[in-house]
Order: sequence, then C-alpha cells, then structure tokens
Amino acid sequence: MEEIVTQFIEKPKLEKPVFVEGLPGVGNVGKLAAEHLIDEIDAVKFADIYSKHFPPQIFVNEDGTIKLVNNELFYKKAEKGGQSDLILLVGDYQGLTPEGQYELADVMLGIAKEFGTSRIYTLGGYAVGKLTEKPKVYGAATSVELVEEMKKIGATFSKTDPSGGIVGASGLLLGLGKMRGIDAICLMGETSGYFVDPKSAEAVLKVLTKALNIEIDFAELEAKAKQIDQITSKIRELEENIPRPKKDDLGYIG
Amino acid sequence: MEEIVTQFIEKPKLEKPVFVEGLPGVGNVGKLAAEHLIDEIDAVKFADIYSKHFPPQIFVNEDGTIKLVNNELFYKKAEKGGQSDLILLVGDYQGLTPEGQYELADVMLGIAKEFGTSRIYTLGGYAVGKLTEKPKVYGAATSVELVEEMKKIGATFSKTDPSGGIVGASGLLLGLGKMRGIDAICLMGETSGYFVDPKSAEAVLKVLTKALNIEIDFAELEAKAKQIDQITSKIRELEENIPRPKKDDLGYIG
Amino acid sequence: MEEIVTQFIEKPKLEKPVFVEGLPGVGNVGKLAAEHLIDEIDAVKFADIYSKHFPPQIFVNEDGTIKLVNNELFYKKAEKGGQSDLILLVGDYQGLTPEGQYELADVMLGIAKEFGTSRIYTLGGYAVGKLTEKPKVYGAATSVELVEEMKKIGATFSKTDPSGGIVGASGLLLGLGKMRGIDAICLMGETSGYFVDPKSAEAVLKVLTKALNIEIDFAELEAKAKQIDQITSKIRELEENIPRPKKDDLGYIG
Amino acid sequence: MEEIVTQFIEKPKLEKPVFVEGLPGVGNVGKLAAEHLIDEIDAVKFADIYSKHFPPQIFVNEDGTIKLVNNELFYKKAEKGGQSDLILLVGDYQGLTPEGQYELADVMLGIAKEFGTSRIYTLGGYAVGKLTEKPKVYGAATSVELVEEMKKIGATFSKTDPSGGIVGASGLLLGLGKMRGIDAICLMGETSGYFVDPKSAEAVLKVLTKALNIEIDFAELEAKAKQIDQITSKIRELEENIPRPKKDDLGYIG
Repeated sequence: MEEIVTQFIEKPKLEKPVFVEGLPGVGNVGKLAAEHLIDEIDAVKFADIYSKHFPPQIFVNEDGTIKLVNNELFYKKAEKGGQSDLILLVGDYQGLTPEGQYELADVMLGIAKEFGTSRIYTLGGYAVGKLTEKPKVYGAATSVELVEEMKKIGATFSKTDPSGGIVGASGLLLGLGKMRGIDAICLMGETSGYFVDPKSAEAVLKVLTKALNIEIDFAELEAKAKQIDQITSKIRELEENIPRPKKDDLGYIG
Repeated sequence: MEEIVTQFIEKPKLEKPVFVEGLPGVGNVGKLAAEHLIDEIDAVKFADIYSKHFPPQIFVNEDGTIKLVNNELFYKKAEKGGQSDLILLVGDYQGLTPEGQYELADVMLGIAKEFGTSRIYTLGGYAVGKLTEKPKVYGAATSVELVEEMKKIGATFSKTDPSGGIVGASGLLLGLGKMRGIDAICLMGETSGYFVDPKSAEAVLKVLTKALNIEIDFAELEAKAKQIDQITSKIRELEENIPRPKKDDLGYIG
Repeated sequence: MEEIVTQFIEKPKLEKPVFVEGLPGVGNVGKLAAEHLIDEIDAVKFADIYSKHFPPQIFVNEDGTIKLVNNELFYKKAEKGGQSDLILLVGDYQGLTPEGQYELADVMLGIAKEFGTSRIYTLGGYAVGKLTEKPKVYGAATSVELVEEMKKIGATFSKTDPSGGIVGASGLLLGLGKMRGIDAICLMGETSGYFVDPKSAEAVLKVLTKALNIEIDFAELEAKAKQIDQITSKIRELEENIPRPKKDDLGYIG
Repeated sequence: MEEIVTQFIEKPKLEKPVFVEGLPGVGNVGKLAAEHLIDEIDAVKFADIYSKHFPPQIFVNEDGTIKLVNNELFYKKAEKGGQSDLILLVGDYQGLTPEGQYELADVMLGIAKEFGTSRIYTLGGYAVGKLTEKPKVYGAATSVELVEEMKKIGATFSKTDPSGGIVGASGLLLGLGKMRGIDAICLMGETSGYFVDPKSAEAVLKVLTKALNIEIDFAELEAKAKQIDQITSKIRELEENIPRPKKDDLGYIG
C-alpha cells in the first residue's frame, strides 16, 4: 500500500484556483471555517485522500455504513467577476507524525500545482489561553506584498504573535509552498484553546471571504457559537460555586 | 527482512470463502470469539504471518520450545448447503503503529482476494464502561444492503454508537476492503472494557453463526464467562467492604 | 547512510562456530555474562556494528577519545576436543524500536549464517521481582531435543515461566533463527529486575560453559556480585530504619 | 519529498575549511556560541537544509513573512595567516528521532567532505545540575593527538566526564566523522542545565577562538549573560522567601 492514496471522483477544469485548507487543529477553527464555506457555496467533492499517516480508524455513518478516515478535496467555480475558482481541503485528521505531515503537505502542494493553483490560504486557530469577545485574525504570508494585502482587509500582523510559530498543515503549506514558488497566506483566529470555537472560525471566514470577494451567510456558525457560549458560561458558573478550602483548613501543609 | 512475511503451510482450494477476523482488542472479544469458532469447527491452520510491526517477542510453549509472535490463518470447508468455506484470522497482536496497521490490513486483504473471498466479518468489542447482563451486538458494514441483512439476524445499528468509530484491524478491513470492492461487516459486542469478556464474545458469535448458518456449542465460552463473573463479583464485594471516609473526616478539603 | 553498517576488522576462519549473544537487558545479566566470558577466554574482536536503530550517542573513553555506540563481535577458536569455535555478540544497546530489533536480529543471523554457525545461545535475565539467593537458569529452545539437552546440564524448564515470553534480541534470535533453520537456545538467569545482577550472570555462565565444555574462572563476577550485595543490604537497612507513620497519625485519611 | 533537502545559495570556494557545529541543545550553549561567532566574524549564509526530521513548523518573522524551520550553513574566508576558512552550521532544531539524527549527521558530513573539510568542532553544553561561576570547557576528540592539542589551549579532559556520553549532532559528527576519517573535536561548556547559558557559551568560544586563531568581542554574550544572571538571582530570592513547613507541622508524616 502506498503512503498516500489520492482517489479522484472527477478532475474539474479550474482556472488558476485559490486553494483553501481547513484541517482539524487548535479550537478546530480552520476545520469549522472551511466546512462552513463548503456548505454555503455548495462546493463539490472531487477527491478523497487516504494515508497510512492517519489513524487506522473508520467512522460509522448514521445509516450503519462506514467511512475510512481521510482528507477530502472540494471545488467551486467562480460565479462572478472578481472571484476565483476554489479548491477546498478538509478532513478528519492531520498526519500523525512529523514525517507524515511533510509527506501529506507535499502531496497537497502537488495537487495544487496540478490544478494551476495561484494562491493558498490556510486557516487555523491561535491559542491565547483565555476567552475573547472579539477574536482577532492573525496573519502570516510568504511575501511582504501579501502581508500588506492582508492588512488592508483586516488581518492583524504582530511582531510577537504567533510566538511559537505555526505547526502542522497550516504552517507547512506556507513553508513548503514558498520553496515551490506558490504564494500562500495563513489566517489564524484568536481562540482560548480550550473549546471548539465557531466564533473564531467566523472571524477568520470574514477576512477570507473579503479576500475571495464572496458573500456568505454566517447564521449556522453563529448558532454553533451560541451553543458553545452557553456551555462555557455554565462551566464558569459551576466553578464560581465550588467552595474552596479556607487557609486555616490547610494549615497542616504549612 | 521484509516488513511482513507470510508463510503458507498449504494453499487450500476454497470456494468464495467468507473471511473472519478476530484479533486482540477491547475485552479481547474478537479474539475469544474467533478462537472459539476455530476450536468448535475444527478449522485447519494454513499460514503464519510474521512482521516487524509486531513486538520483538517470542512466547515459550509448555514443552520449552518457542514461538515467534504472529498472526495465523485457518480454513474450514463448508459441510452442508447454505454454508460457505471459511478463512479465519487470529493472532497474538495487532500492528503496533498506524503504518503497521495499514500495511498488515493491506496484506490480509491481498490474501482474502487471492482466495476469492466474497465477504469479510470482523469481530470486536465495544467498550461501554459498565458491566452489562445481556451484551448487545453492534454492527457496521460497507453497504446499506449489508446493514439491512445484519439487522434481520439480530445486530444492533445505532445512529450514535460506536461513537468513536472503529479502530484497528476490525475497522481497517472494512475501510480498505470497501476501497477494494469487498463486502465487509464488523460485529462488536458490548463490553465493559475492563475485563476479557467471553460473554460478549458469545453474543458476537451467536450473530455470526446465524449469518454463516453454522451451529456450534458455547459451553467452553460460557465456562470462561462464569470464571470472569466470579472474579468481578469478588472485586465488587471487596470494593463494597472498603470503609470510605465519612464526610466529616474530609472536612478540611472543603 | 544504511540502516545497519557492519565493519569487519578481520574475517576469521571458523569451523561451525557456536554464536553467543549477550546484549543489555533485564539486570544486564546477558551482557555481564558474555563480557565476562570474552575476558576469560581472551576472545578477539573482529567486527563493529553501527546502526540508526541505536541512540545518536558517543561515549568518551578515559583518554578523551570517543566511541560511537555499537554492537561488537568477538571470536575464539576451540582449544581442545569437545569444544566449538565461538562467535560472541555484545554491545552498548539493543535496537530502540520493534522494527530496529527485527532488522538487527536479521543482520546478526545473516552473519551467523555467513560463518556457518551451528547453534546460537542467547543470554538474558528473567525478572521475578524479588532477590533470590540461588538464581535458577530458565531455558527455552527451538526444538524439543535442545530442551532435553539443556535440562541435562542444569537449565530449568517451566510450564509457566517466563510468563511474558522473551522480548528483544534474546527472543528474536530464537524466533527468527528457527525460521532460518538455526538451532537456538535462550538461557535466562533469575534476577530481581531492580539491580544489575552479576550473581545471576554467573549462574547463566555456569550452564553455558558446561554446554560449551569450557572452564573459566568466576572470581571477577563474584567480586562484582559482592559489591552489589553490599549496596542492596545497605538499602534494606535504610528502609527498615525509616519510621513509618502510625495508624493514628493518618486518621484523617479515613 | 526527500528526507533531507539542501538548497545552496552559493557554493563558496574554500581551502580545507574547519567546520563548526552549534545546534540547539543543553543550555543552548552550542547554538549561542556558534551564532555569536557568525555575527562577530560576519560569516555569509550559503545553504539551507530542510528535513522531514524537523518539526512540521514555520516561524513568523517580524514583518509577517515566514520561515520553514531548518538548519543553515555559513562560511567565512580566512583573513590572515594562521587562520582557516570556516563553515558554520546552526539551526532551529536537531533531528527529532534517532534515525533522523543519524541521517542529518551523515548529510552534514557529506557536505563537510565536499568542501574538503580538514577538521570539525562541535559545540555544546554539559549539564552539571548546579550554577557555576567559572564554567569549565570539557573536551572529547577522535584521536589522542587532538586531545593533547586541546588540553594545551584550555580544554578539560576528565576520566569520568561527560559521564553519559555525548548525545545528538555534537556526538554523532565525531562518531560518524571518525568512521569517515575526519578529525573532530567536541567542546562542551559546563552549564546548570536549567537555563540558556551565554556564560558557558562564552567559555566555549574562548577555547574555540584560541584554536582557530581568531579574536572576537564578547560584549554581546556578556550582556546576555547578565540578563540571565538577573533572572536567576530573582528566582533564588523568591525561593528563599517562600515560607517552608516547620518540622512540627509535618509530624504526621512520621
């Protein structure tokens, strides 16, 4: 069995498509954003990517049939002037090992090249360790020109953030993309790091759709965000009501 | 040394055999079930599978001779109309790494294809975290038709279970089998996840033997189930007799 | 760089040599035994084995020069009738991964075959979790004939021990050796599992030298055993003098 | 994608260059030393080394552009008699796995050979578990002659240190270098092991620059050392002010 198996359902004819990656990661921000975009623009699946670098696992669908864990590629043709054809990458997992990550990113870039991709956007979350009302969207890019372009549409660039760099597919597609001469931008929504974060996904999508000149509805994401908000509020309430030991009671610790 | 070495003792001539997998896993349900079936139908070993993906380990037999850890294949010719020839896969271990799991499943499917396998059953346990009197047998399959067929003979299909999907050989043989166009079904016995579970293995075997139109005796499995029951009862008794701290004694915790 | 690099210093002409393995493991029993044997019979080093499966590490010699971690092969020609030529394998480490273990054992067997090896002895420790005055030497072998032969010279064969099988090079050389048609025996000295155990190594060597018809001195090993005995006695004394909390003091735990 | 990709910016013509390695490690001593040397002698970058053996990670520069994690090679031509041309190796990471370490060291040695390297210095830290005012510089080398040469310029050679050998690139370049017939020396600065240690890096550089007949300024390193000193002093102060439990309070422990 090959390391990575790509099965094409169709090979769409695309004009210099923009490639958007949203795989699972911090707060599942990238995955939530890319899946929402796919739903809203009715993108069409055209390929499955299976790999030994994913867990040896299947999921069971609601009807009892099964699905081997994978990554999936969708496309959408531009609908009006000022838009680009799109390829969208989503999936159940990222590669489990560093080597797997490099090999998968290399295959993704090969596919991007094959379809004549002009630019890559990778979507992710940036864990800041606390809840934020209005998540910023941090950016990083393969050239200064792209940085300037992103600043204009609302991305934040900071001398210090993201401090630990960008790990995984969202980072590698930029790093290896640059080596192969493909323009690439990473958009990272601020997120606590403790919950899946649809609000952060919405913030990322707002920057991305502006860049792509697409208008979409955010109602679904906002509904999910409300659900999460309710859960987190309850947890905070519970925490506040837990009686803590008084200092006296713990005297024996010193 | 090759990654996986298959040594055939003989190459039996089989007519569209059904392939049954029962490797170690949750509650050892699949292994117990497949080994019991092999014993009851007097299946014959025809191949050993050794691999770098298994631990570097030998077992010592009662007579002081040794056995390198492996997987083993057995076969049984159909004895009457309405039955199928069978191939049965059992073993000491599953592959240790995700890559090893994929490579081993790929080899198993190659062997299944070589013998003209018409259908695969994989057997396993589904951990529910508590003891159950009458373990259900959950199913998953590569097509809706197979799901319907399994429902008729007593398998349970649920929109939510197994919630985490199916991990390891029992999952991969379905996932990769589907890619290769082989019909495959996974039968999972409910089990606590804390003990080896012959009772769950019996439940799985009852569904499987109905599907295979085979009648076997369950006395051995039931005896093992009784032994386990005695051990778990004792543990529960012991737990109940452990004096627990009264609330007052723990006042200092708050 | 190749996975495993064997550098021969010389290629000795040996007559059906017996191959003895003593790599690091439980209680370092095998390593202590093989190194003691090499010293006592003045065996000559003839090859170095380096590998990516060992740690990326060098040792610094007393004179400030360095040594890349490795495995080493020694030989000794028979000195009188009834003895065999010997190849002895010792080293700093075993392979770090299961795959590395299999590949290294495969290379060792290739070398054994190249020199016409007639039989392999692997030496190791068997952890029993407590100190023993007179460590038994457990055996395992590739055939019933070898088991009988070993029983006659003092090896113990038990229906239940070693219960977990034999892990690492000492096991694999038997398991893979059997597949290649080489007779092989594992001798395991009982050991606590907590300390390096020269006493257990001596017990193993007494069985091995009887099998090889060699007489050697054990003074060095016995001196080392005394040092270890002194350390373990001191630890036991210390433990006995630690005042333990009285039940009353711990009343608050319940 | 290849395991290791070396991209040359230029191929400088060098005369038997001395190769200096300073990758991240204990106290970051080697990295700090090599980077300081590069800055002080205005060495020129001539190659980037990317690898699947590094983490799948990019760093974000202050201007928002990105950099795939890598190792980098610099060179500096000799400026006066008695000096050598230099190649300097620095980087973000060492290989993540033992195999990766071996493969990377092998590639580094290939490059060293390609440029006619006459000698390798590897720089690192030796963790002693406590702060030291005047860190010693321990040495290790591929020959007794090199040991003597290093002793003359201030390196310490001890029969017992470094007791655990030398792990990683600093060790492997000596171990594999010796196999390929390249003279190599490791210089290790004593360091606590708890902090990055510019003072230890300075000590290492003083020995190295004497060996290379180069004079450099240490002001930058000394400034960094002062910062670290201030932090460690504060921590010690804090620790001294933490009230510890009195013996009485802990009476219940025994």
